Parts: sequence; structure tokens; C-alpha cells
Amino acid sequence: MTLEARLTVPVAPALLEIQDPIRKKLDRVPDEIWRIVKADDLIIAAANAHLRGMKGKMFRPTLLLLASELEGNADGRETAFAAVSELVHLASVVHDDSVDHSNVRRGQPTINAMFSHQIAVIMGDYLYSKALAELVRLGDLEPLRAFTAASNDMTLGEMRQLASYDALSFNESDYWQLIHAKTASLLGAACEVGALCGAPAYRAAMRRYGDQLGMAFQVADDLLDYTEVESVTGKPSGNDLREHKVTLPLIAALPQMSAAQRGRVDSLFATKLPDEADIADVVAIVTECGGIDYARTKGQQFAEEAEAALAPLPQSLTRQCLSDALTYVVERRS
Amino acid sequence: MTLEARLTVPVAPALLEIQDPIRKKLDRVPDEIWRIVKADDLIIAAANAHLRGMKGKMFRPTLLLLASELEGNADGRETAFAAVSELVHLASVVHDDSVDHSNVRRGQPTINAMFSHQIAVIMGDYLYSKALAELVRLGDLEPLRAFTAASNDMTLGEMRQLASYDALSFNESDYWQLIHAKTASLLGAACEVGALCGAPAYRAAMRRYGDQLGMAFQVADDLLDYTEVESVTGKPSGNDLREHKVTLPLIAALPQMSAAQRGRVDSLFATKLPDEADIADVVAIVTECGGIDYARTKGQQFAEEAEAALAPLPQSLTRQCLSDALTYVVERRS
Repeated sequence: MTLEARLTVPVAPALLEIQDPIRKKLDRVPDEIWRIVKADDLIIAAANAHLRGMKGKMFRPTLLLLASELEGNADGRETAFAAVSELVHLASVVHDDSVDHSNVRRGQPTINAMFSHQIAVIMGDYLYSKALAELVRLGDLEPLRAFTAASNDMTLGEMRQLASYDALSFNESDYWQLIHAKTASLLGAACEVGALCGAPAYRAAMRRYGDQLGMAFQVADDLLDYTEVESVTGKPSGNDLREHKVTLPLIAALPQMSAAQRGRVDSLFATKLPDEADIADVVAIVTECGGIDYARTKGQQFAEEAEAALAPLPQSLTRQCLSDALTYVVERRS
Repeated sequence: MTLEARLTVPVAPALLEIQDPIRKKLDRVPDEIWRIVKADDLIIAAANAHLRGMKGKMFRPTLLLLASELEGNADGRETAFAAVSELVHLASVVHDDSVDHSNVRRGQPTINAMFSHQIAVIMGDYLYSKALAELVRLGDLEPLRAFTAASNDMTLGEMRQLASYDALSFNESDYWQLIHAKTASLLGAACEVGALCGAPAYRAAMRRYGDQLGMAFQVADDLLDYTEVESVTGKPSGNDLREHKVTLPLIAALPQMSAAQRGRVDSLFATKLPDEADIADVVAIVTECGGIDYARTKGQQFAEEAEAALAPLPQSLTRQCLSDALTYVVERRS
């Protein structure tokens, strides 16, 4: 897509606008996070400082805080829970990067790249155990239940991802199970816990919203690999294909391929380090065979189901932001 | 030590005898563990089966169950908590082996050796998140507090161990902090949680007993590396020295060494893969400079403090077993 073409595409609601009603609390979340994980240990302090510089979107805290404001009377615990939701995410990110040998995240070196794999393993454990200790300090079993179940799902998801590595037999139902475990589960928990902090009547609705939003989020993430043109190469990154990760666009396209097209996919998956031309080739095949359109439609369906979950909620700016978050998720470009 | 010599040494109370009053419950702990961690995932099921074959001493469950029986009326939750105590230990062992690149534990290949480092990282996360989910299911915040604090200490301990690696500047106070975090903390939590299941009046006493026993346990463990003659080599293993781990016998001996002796220690620590003769040499220096005697005395002192913590307890077979456990810890050979 040329620059001119991009400028004419309608712009997805900016994350900043979605965060507007809870801006003050959200701005306090980083301080809450560093209060929870503060340590005298020099390595931990250095890793903390590095993670602090690796600014994330704070998407889980955003949703948790919005959910807590649905009835306009969050009970005061929401900022701490928002920090916990980000920490649980961060702990899993640190371990995932170590397991995947990823060197860069959000433009910064990962903990395993900056320090070592050993430190990444222990640092992930540290962040997670601190998040748990904070939940225990807050003294409510329901958020503990939601976050421990999500962590459990995330480890199952990560294990499934390892097992399915290099497996073109990975099917759509495996994919739904995987992305629910690795992504939707924690987003669902964040929304549920948010509701517990001020709008408990909407707990089930927010859980459903978060789960469905999470599915849409991961489908969109997996689509970006096939669609988003990188500034340097002018081509989609194709990182998942490069790492032999099978995601929805490919799963949907596989049955539509000619024998020759399928042969080119098989050949890419049989090559340890596929070259850029092979990746661009398979991206084109997946597009031609309807994989991108299929994934877009599915992502849209999840967003619609999430929107439907908002039906019982009172009309308010907060509800509007939750709705806008769905458009943001589906249309985002990074 | 020859076989004859060993047979004349007074035998420490066997672990089996200490476990006698809680034998039936202890025998149910493995089933509880596998109930908690059971999974459909094929890799997790295979790793579980492998861990099940790697039979441990079940020392944490033993102490937890004994503590729960102090007043003869454990409340029924003790077997599940005992399983959790072993799972928290197992999760840390799986990550430690991965971080330390250890290939063998209890005569069996480790998870990282048998499967991969990646699987070990996720498997440790899985075991820990399952242990936490079980604690949440049991619905009592106090055991959650005790176990999450212990896990947190254990990650701090592991991080300190990485940092102190290869550091002859590691001093006695660093060592106490380290072994409290990595060992005493979970043993203390196990004893405390046991008391919470049937003898809450002795909660503080059992915490103190477990903490002190844990210190004695780790000192004894570190001594074995210097003292226990291996059947194959006929020499102490010296594994810690081989890996440049500084423990109490060496810390205590360092200030007593001549410049020549100190030079030989420095040289071993400057050699990436020290040979057997160098290790035997440093073991002899540490022994000659009183490091072994010093560590034995300290271990004994911790055992005495643990014994003192038992003073308020009613006289019973259970109390006697807790007392015998101290002798077992100090005199054990493996």
C-alpha cells in the first residue's frame, strides 16, 4: 500500500482516545507495577528498569480499568489489579521470548538478549510470583481465580505452540483452542476482574466481551504478519511463515490451494531458513486462496460477538470506549 | 570411608520411620499431585509421567503432614496442601535444572535433558500455575500467602545464585540470605501450612522450626559435596567446586588459608573446567582450614534452634518425628 492509499483508509479509533476516560488511573499503573516488583537485587533491578523502558500498549490495564468504571463507581482496587494484569502478561512475554529465542520486542532487546536465557527464566518467575503475592495481599479469591486460570491457559497455549511447530496438520479448531489459551484467556480475565471492582452485575458480560475481543485481537495480530507492509522491505514481514508458525490465514487457504501451490508451501516448511522470495510467494498464495479474507471475516465475527456481549451494559462513555476498542483491535496496524 | 567404617557409624533416623505416623496420607500425595497437574496435552502428559518416575524424598509433604497432626485432628485439607508443597518444589527444580543446564537429577534425566530447555521453561510454569490454581480452589488465603511468599523468595535466591556465580567475594551473610531464600523459605511455609490444617496454635512455632530445619538442611546438602565419598570415584564429588559455586565450607575456610592455599583456590576458580586433582586438592585445603568442621557446627546450631522451636508442642509421636527429622537432616548422606 502506498503512503497516499494509507492516508485515505479510515483511521481506527486511537488507543489514546479509548483510554481517555481512565487516563489518570492508567498513568498510575506503571508506578503500581514498579511498586509491586521493586527489588534490592541488582540484576532484578536492572531487568525491571529495562522492562520499564520497553513501553507496552497497556491494553490489559486499559480494558480492566474501563470495565471497573461501567457504573461509575470503581472500588479503589482497580489500579492494583490493572498492574497485576500487565505483570502477568509481562511474565509470560519474558518466558515466551526466551523459549522462542526472540531478540527484539517493541523495538528493544528482550531480557534473554540483553541479559541471558537463565536470567529471563528466573525474571519471568519473579514477575509472576510478585503478581501473585500482590493478588494475595489484595485478599480477594475471585481475581486470584481468574488470573491463575488465565496463567494456566497461557502455559497450555505456549506448550501447544511448541508441539504444533512446523506442523501443517494444525487445523482451525487447534488454532481456536491455541489463541483462546494464549491470548483471549488473559484479556477475558482482565475484563472480568475489572467488572469485579465496581460493576459485578456485568461480570459475565465483561468476561464474554474480553474472551471474544481476545480472539479478534489474536486473529488481527496473525493477519498483520501477512498484510502489513514493512517500511524497510516494502513487503509484509512474513515472520510467522519464516518461523514455520501456522496461523489462520494459512490454515484457511490450504484446502483451496492447487497441488502446485501446496507444493510451494510444503517446500517453505521443509526449508530451515526460507528466503524472502519464498515467503513473499507463499504470502501471495495465501492471499489468492482467500486466507486473508477468511481471517478478516472471522476477526470481524469475534468483534461482533464481543459487541453483542456489551448489550446489557448501560449507555455511557465507558461502554462506547469498550466498543471502540473492538474497532481498534480489528483495524490496528501494529 | 570403607564399608566397614560406614556400618559402625550411628545410623540417622530413617526417613521411613519419620514418615510412619503419616504413612497412609503420604502415600496418597502422589495421586493428589497427578490429579492436580493432569493434562490432555501430550507433551505435558509425557513430562508428568517422567517426573512421576523421578521419585523424590517427599520431604516437604512429610513435614507438612506431621505438622498437621500435632493435635491429632488434621482438618482434611492437609493431603492437598502436601501435594501443593511438593509441586511448588518440583516447579522450581524443573526451572533450576534448566537454568543450571543440569542433565541428571535423582539418577534420572532432567526435563531439559529429556525434552528441551523450552519445554522445561513452560513445564515449570505449568506445574507452578497448577499448584496455585489448587490453592485458589482450596479457598484459604493464608496458605496462598505462605506459598507465594516462598516462591518469591526462591526466585530471589536463584537470581542471587546466578549473580554470585564464580564470586569468591560471596560472604557468610550472603550465604545465609541465599539458603534461606532458596531452601528454608519453602520448608518453613510447608510446616506453617501444616499447622494451619489442624494445629493453628502452633503456626508460629512450626514456621520457626521449618525455617531453621531448612537452614540445617541446606548446610548439610552443601557439606555432602565436600564429604560424601562417591562409590565410583572413591572421592567427594566436589560438584559445587567444579561449577564454581561457593558454599559455607569454602567461605569459612578462606580466611584461614595461607597465601599458597588461597592461590590454589583462586586458580581453580579461574579454570573453566578444573580437573579432578585440583578439586581434590581444594577439598583437602577446605578440610584442613576448618571449613567442614565450621559448617558441621553451624548445621548443628540450626538443628538445635529448630528443636527449641518445638518446645511449646505437646509430647507426642508426631513431635518425636519432627525432632528425628532434624537428626535425619543433619546426618543424612544423600
